[in-house]
Amino acid sequence: MFSVTVRDHMMIAHSFRGEVFGPAQRLHGATYVVDATFRRTALDADDIVVDIGRAAEVLHEVLAELNYRNLDDQPELAGVNTSTEALAQVVADRLADRVQAGALGDGAQGLEGLVVTLHESHIAWASYERQL
Amino acid sequence: MFSVTVRDHMMIAHSFRGEVFGPAQRLHGATYVVDATFRRTALDADDIVVDIGRAAEVLHEVLAELNYRNLDDQPELAGVNTSTEALAQVVADRLADRVQAGALGDGAQGLEGLVVTLHESHIAWASYERQL
Amino acid sequence: MFSVTVRDHMMIAHSFRGEVFGPAQRLHGATYVVDATFRRTALDADDIVVDIGRAAEVLHEVLAELNYRNLDDQPELAGVNTSTEALAQVVADRLADRVQAGALGDGAQGLEGLVVTLHESHIAWASYERQL
Amino acid sequence: MFSVTVRDHMMIAHSFRGEVFGPAQRLHGATYVVDATFRRTALDADDIVVDIGRAAEVLHEVLAELNYRNLDDQPELAGVNTSTEALAQVVADRLADRVQAGALGDGAQGLEGLVVTLHESHIAWASYERQL
Amino acid sequence: MFSVTVRDHMMIAHSFRGEVFGPAQRLHGATYVVDATFRRTALDADDIVVDIGRAAEVLHEVLAELNYRNLDDQPELAGVNTSTEALAQVVADRLADRVQAGALGDGAQGLEGLVVTLHESHIAWASYERQL
Amino acid sequence: MFSVTVRDHMMIAHSFRGEVFGPAQRLHGATYVVDATFRRTALDADDIVVDIGRAAEVLHEVLAELNYRNLDDQPELAGVNTSTEALAQVVADRLADRVQAGALGDGAQGLEGLVVTLHESHIAWASYERQL
Repeated sequence: MFSVTVRDHMMIAHSFRGEVFGPAQRLHGATYVVDATFRRTALDADDIVVDIGRAAEVLHEVLAELNYRNLDDQPELAGVNTSTEALAQVVADRLADRVQAGALGDGAQGLEGLVVTLHESHIAWASYERQL
Repeated sequence: MFSVTVRDHMMIAHSFRGEVFGPAQRLHGATYVVDATFRRTALDADDIVVDIGRAAEVLHEVLAELNYRNLDDQPELAGVNTSTEALAQVVADRLADRVQAGALGDGAQGLEGLVVTLHESHIAWASYERQL
Repeated sequence: MFSVTVRDHMMIAHSFRGEVFGPAQRLHGATYVVDATFRRTALDADDIVVDIGRAAEVLHEVLAELNYRNLDDQPELAGVNTSTEALAQVVADRLADRVQAGALGDGAQGLEGLVVTLHESHIAWASYERQL
Repeated sequence: MFSVTVRDHMMIAHSFRGEVFGPAQRLHGATYVVDATFRRTALDADDIVVDIGRAAEVLHEVLAELNYRNLDDQPELAGVNTSTEALAQVVADRLADRVQAGALGDGAQGLEGLVVTLHESHIAWASYERQL
Repeated sequence: MFSVTVRDHMMIAHSFRGEVFGPAQRLHGATYVVDATFRRTALDADDIVVDIGRAAEVLHEVLAELNYRNLDDQPELAGVNTSTEALAQVVADRLADRVQAGALGDGAQGLEGLVVTLHESHIAWASYERQL
Repeated sequence: MFSVTVRDHMMIAHSFRGEVFGPAQRLHGATYVVDATFRRTALDADDIVVDIGRAAEVLHEVLAELNYRNLDDQPELAGVNTSTEALAQVVADRLADRVQAGALGDGAQGLEGLVVTLHESHIAWASYERQL
């Protein structure tokens, strides 16, 4: 199994609902350093998993929809706690939609899996893994 | 599949028995930077894998039992080489005991797996992965 | 010249005023991984620059005043853009006040300088350096 | 499941064939920071996955065959784009050959899997995973 | 004293002349992860050292002149060993030229110093520091 | 001003004397990831600060004298707390002796300064800086 990972980041504000979150129920924020990993069993005709440049662009586009925003105001995220792990799924699902729409080219149709990891600090991070 | 990871560290002395260890048969020591990863298929009612704050506390408690000690003197580790990989299992099993005893709350009963990684330097680390 | 550095972090929301900031004029947020470096010419009677444990506690206390908050609502920060570099000075000055008030013990009266670095992402950070 | 990882690096020149590679079709180069992960279900008689020192030596030998070279001139790599992911497989397969030839000792016959990750920069890396 | 640092990278081929370089006399390559640090005594009217976005763009432009190239073929580098430290000076001097030409805006005229660090691997890096 | 840094590590046991050290008064240990930085105003005739390969070898030799040892048993360290900052000076002074004895070659006689940083964990490190 092969994989390629690209890294980018986003800076957002948000708050959480629920006693378990303690002081994080207040409006605060985070830098998420985001790693997107693309997986496939065999390389394509160019000997790659995916074009790293295009993968980085698509990740940047997905993060741009959330970057420099207060996630509490995003209608599509209403009613969910935008925890690091929940946001990992949001980013992964949006990346998957773009892969399936052809944003990474025809060769990328051979991609089989995707992992998105969001690092919220030097001591905590979360991931979501799904098939493509 | 979702996961959340928290990081902490411990500083211990120990020695190894067996020619394969060369100079590490002498009493020496290590800082282990420890990553504990908790996994589950679906998020809980708060949209999280586990409360990161509580996970960090439980990891800290487990490491406190070993921290600032000479592992050669710990009765429960007698007769085993406390290699990085063997210690990863010790930490993982102690974390699993605490999860099963409820230390991470009721929501954490949905946890399915656990990975513990101990970084012994910038060029070597070891992991142990188990089910919950 | 000797130095000791301890690392912690904080997660805040804020916004900026001024066209130069582009989309960062919107309410967003950041995780700042914060390094505080203490400097002195000679070690104290215990052969240290400062007690690392106490230095870490004092840094944690200073960051707790800002952590999990919207900095736009902090009266003492009104009228200033809380850029990474401006916040580095805020943290450094508050640390200096505590050092001078004796929070790091008598031995720490020999400290001569302080550097605070805030990492806002894997590709950008800022520092402020001052005397003690 | 246990694993042990060792890290080393190599510095090579190469070029790519195919429009997808854009400016990387020109002769350029890379530092690859290489992580080799060895996996097995149970520890050996010395309570380890593999001797870390020997694993590091074998990885160093494999990388020495490629280090400080122009990969475009390596006969055994002719006709393939030496992408980060393709090189991860080259390194993994050569490591596997050495493990099977006994370079890591008899205890290492219990190894079950191998992952090789090549970091090409702070924002991109690739892996190849195989059985042993 | 305040500073702001931005990080980017470039991937180049080159070779060295001189016995001291051993196998690095062969054509090989490197990824340089490049940190550019801008320093000044006081913040500007926007409470910043320099606009991080513009600083990142200018660094990217300077690196683009070298990226994906064989430095042995660059006329302006003829006759010099493009060691990590020598390249740090090349990047710093080109950044300084752009700052002085106004590429970072009028506020950046207050910049006083510049440090460029090139990381060639996880175990070696080099810097060049100069005034502005 | 130019600088070159090389990184290595050592794994030692030790204990501290003095109430300020709390549980670190017990025999424990540490991995120190060690960075040695060499500085000079102008490059040598080979366009380098120092031969990185030789610098790495000399650092490795100095660390080998301490590696895999209980520092409490080292006669030359008797009566001093081997704090991270105190050890940084030990390593720096031993490096300086070797530089002055010619271990880095004639070109290295132009070196002017030296900084040694010991990282004891992901959240604490210490440095010692001196002239050559």
